[in-house]
Amino acid sequence: MIDVIAFDADDTLWHNERMFQATELQFAELLSAYHPAEWVRERLFATEMKNLGHFGYGIKGFILSMIETALDLTESRIGGAEIKRIVDWGHEMLLHPVQLLDGVRETIEALNGRYRLMLLTKGDLFDQESKLARSGLGEFFDAVEIVSTKNASTYRTILTRHAISPERLVMVGNSLRSDVLPALEAGALAVHIPYETMWAHEHLDEETLAGKEFGVLERIAELPEWLAER
Amino acid sequence: MIDVIAFDADDTLWHNERMFQATELQFAELLSAYHPAEWVRERLFATEMKNLGHFGYGIKGFILSMIETALDLTESRIGGAEIKRIVDWGHEMLLHPVQLLDGVRETIEALNGRYRLMLLTKGDLFDQESKLARSGLGEFFDAVEIVSTKNASTYRTILTRHAISPERLVMVGNSLRSDVLPALEAGALAVHIPYETMWAHEHLDEETLAGKEFGVLERIAELPEWLAER
Repeated sequence: MIDVIAFDADDTLWHNERMFQATELQFAELLSAYHPAEWVRERLFATEMKNLGHFGYGIKGFILSMIETALDLTESRIGGAEIKRIVDWGHEMLLHPVQLLDGVRETIEALNGRYRLMLLTKGDLFDQESKLARSGLGEFFDAVEIVSTKNASTYRTILTRHAISPERLVMVGNSLRSDVLPALEAGALAVHIPYETMWAHEHLDEETLAGKEFGVLERIAELPEWLAER
Repeated sequence: MIDVIAFDADDTLWHNERMFQATELQFAELLSAYHPAEWVRERLFATEMKNLGHFGYGIKGFILSMIETALDLTESRIGGAEIKRIVDWGHEMLLHPVQLLDGVRETIEALNGRYRLMLLTKGDLFDQESKLARSGLGEFFDAVEIVSTKNASTYRTILTRHAISPERLVMVGNSLRSDVLPALEAGALAVHIPYETMWAHEHLDEETLAGKEFGVLERIAELPEWLAER
């Protein structure tokens, strides 16, 4: 029945949130003379949420939100040297090596040829393409879809574009909010593989999940067996 | 023969470069106490080119490049208040109303239904989707392709994805480098509609055009007649 597997990318195939959280810690440290770390991180998150509607997801928007937060929290007293450190973090993040999660390469290789594999990720077009190229996984995907947001309508559009009936597709990802729920809403199947940590924006109330059916795996290496059991 | 028309967006359907150039003038003014305007703009362009390979195109990358240039050109002596002005320009640019070029709406409406219309633009995914939505033209396009770069391989991929043989498609745009030449190289037809001004990055040596055949129109309103004459 299932013959197409769509994979989320960030924190499903390769590490991502780790790098953002490490940079956030450095940011809180940078502003520690002005404010406690918890408050800095809270204000940064608020700035990110305010900007999400016209920045979208990704590193460039994150860096701009850090600069904006630093200016706000210091009433623009922050110096050029500190701003420069933030800009430099942006370059480091964009050039950061792509680190695959455990078992990803083996699993993708094992599924390759037996299923049509799709990469379906939200985020910055340029950055996601660059990460896919650097991941060494590009050759295994029959289709790559980079979208600005992932809701049920996004999944329906993709299913239509590729002429796939929903029950043939399983969406695999670490986010209940972006991967699991909207895929189910579009009539597809879904597998949730929680990541070690989660961006607050992806948080979901437990009750939203009531009555939903989807697979939950600890590691991507369990996916072939889960599929074999369908 | 031709039944698909692909349109570039920035400076073909709506004004874009104008806004960047106006912001560049403000930027040169902001740094006028440190350096002459011509030097500021030259260094900004050099920073943009250095960053293009990992920022891609778009407003967020442009703003980050301005901040980086301002820090470089002042040895980080620039103050938070000045950086804040640059950040604010970014928000203004992202929220700037989409202004269609003369004749665009009428032409698109006239061609709608008689041809399959495609939007084919490079740039920031999130920003381009937002501009298309705000342009009021979204309903007229059968397909929207936002790509990170426009070369012959990009055009071939899009032709294949939509199962269009090259000679059925005409690419219409203001850039010889991104719209006309790579479309011709992929076997499609092309129409060049020069914009009032051009980003230096899109500049092309005249000799590259030797032996190429494509249409040149002054205004998009001339497109239906050009098509009728094929």
